[in-house]
Amino acid sequence: MTSPTSRPQDAPRPRPGGRTARIRGRVHEATLAELAEHGFAGVTVEAVALRAGVHRATVYRRWGDVGGLLADFLDAAGDDEWEPPDTGSLRGDLTALNREVFDALTARPSVVAALIAASFHSQKAEHAQRRLWEDRYARCAVLVTRAVARGEIPPRTDPRRLLVAATAPVYHELVLLRTTPDPGLPDLAAGAAALAAGGGAFTVPDGPG
Amino acid sequence: MTSPTSRPQDAPRPRPGGRTARIRGRVHEATLAELAEHGFAGVTVEAVALRAGVHRATVYRRWGDVGGLLADFLDAAGDDEWEPPDTGSLRGDLTALNREVFDALTARPSVVAALIAASFHSQKAEHAQRRLWEDRYARCAVLVTRAVARGEIPPRTDPRRLLVAATAPVYHELVLLRTTPDPGLPDLAAGAAALAAGGGAFTVPDGPG
Repeated sequence: MTSPTSRPQDAPRPRPGGRTARIRGRVHEATLAELAEHGFAGVTVEAVALRAGVHRATVYRRWGDVGGLLADFLDAAGDDEWEPPDTGSLRGDLTALNREVFDALTARPSVVAALIAASFHSQKAEHAQRRLWEDRYARCAVLVTRAVARGEIPPRTDPRRLLVAATAPVYHELVLLRTTPDPGLPDLAAGAAALAAGGGAFTVPDGPG
Repeated sequence: MTSPTSRPQDAPRPRPGGRTARIRGRVHEATLAELAEHGFAGVTVEAVALRAGVHRATVYRRWGDVGGLLADFLDAAGDDEWEPPDTGSLRGDLTALNREVFDALTARPSVVAALIAASFHSQKAEHAQRRLWEDRYARCAVLVTRAVARGEIPPRTDPRRLLVAATAPVYHELVLLRTTPDPGLPDLAAGAAALAAGGGAFTVPDGPG
């Protein structure tokens, strides 16, 4: 089990603007491009190294394998300034969030979909994907707190449960069922979750524990 | 694109009890056992043939590759007498349904989870998985019709949308987020979807089109 803060073996901590950071950036770009073009099964350390203009021995030493490359890419992707939408209503916020997910999953090629597929092949990619998602859900908790403060939903609404209910149908249709994308889906799923939240479907018991 | 009724190339239609049907059954059992033991990446046509006691040339000719084996297994799995739960209430039915999904995904080894993972590797397995899911959602539509008849939810509630909303969080947590299974999840997700359905979150406009 990889710890949430682990980095690829022997990887020096990148200094922004330094040579290490530049190499890491080039390798991430190359990983992304190879993934978008060929999908997980078609990505090789050799092709990434060639594309990045980095010696393949360096890539093997720092990232180990394709799973390591993807995991480090995902960790870097999570290390951003992303903030959840703030539209003034819970339904509006959840809809905007779902539209971001929908757009990412229906982009052609979809890097997000390719990374999800990769998480079924590589445990390193799986753990990194999970860290990224958990970080995103944690950042979105504020969206629930604001809705409680506005009196839209009951206090003690569990943010994660509500956020999973709102977003899960979008992932389910596009990643697992692979149905033709329905542009109305983000709003529909958000509206249903907001309605259920208003009715207290995601509240947790009072008190400690 | 595989049509919903396609069968593996050259596969004779199985006659129940006939030699062809017996071989198909043995091959399915062997596929299942190999998948459960080794996961998709570890399944080979050779090992399945050996385990089933069938010549590997026969397996190659009838099923083509591992994707073809899984697709035929999934098609056979969908060809059953399964019926959705009938507990007397929408929430009860959705909870029972979610518990079935939860149990299948948390079984160790989970054949269902392995088949989902396989759908990211093999287009044949992907199409078969999709056919199975769409068939299950279609069979469950009666559960929504009954709830409408009981007056629990508005007429014109779209069965598929409601069923996806109810079940998606279970798949999302266990297949994509891979969180520690929460035994309360089936009931929570079912309750939220039933509440939203009662409020009209899944109704479709009146009239044709």
